[in-house]
Amino acid sequence: ADYCLKEGLDFKQLLPLIQETASGLYKISPRDAQTGPAIRHDSETIHKHLELLKAHPQLKNLYILITESIQQLK
Amino acid sequence: ADYCLKEGLDFKQLLPLIQETASGLYKISPRDAQTGPAIRHDSETIHKHLELLKAHPQLKNLYILITESIQQLK
Repeated sequence: ADYCLKEGLDFKQLLPLIQETASGLYKISPRDAQTGPAIRHDSETIHKHLELLKAHPQLKNLYILITESIQQLK
Repeated sequence: ADYCLKEGLDFKQLLPLIQETASGLYKISPRDAQTGPAIRHDSETIHKHLELLKAHPQLKNLYILITESIQQLK
């Protein structure tokens, strides 16, 4: 939410995504529900994201750690 | 979910907590919704958690990074 504030985004717009992700886990496992660049090994998008996080070193570290952990899933 | 499997826990038992956390964000901001040992600066509990994560170095690193990020909130 702090990130959104700093970047002029409205955190509320993310709520449906968060809500649906949580609800989805009743139907499929986190592993099967996983989407996004990490599980696709989409390095181009990952590099774009890291570039966008340049001014947010802590979020960038989290992003790297979570990306690594997702990529070990398969 | 992998952690639960390895530790003999049922991930499904966490679903209501995940669901309620997501729904709660419609009413209060993530900052105001934050609970747990990090925001309380409860080092005793944090050390117990880190001890329990000894066999899971990647989760332990995530735990440390997220704890640091929560503790900077206030």
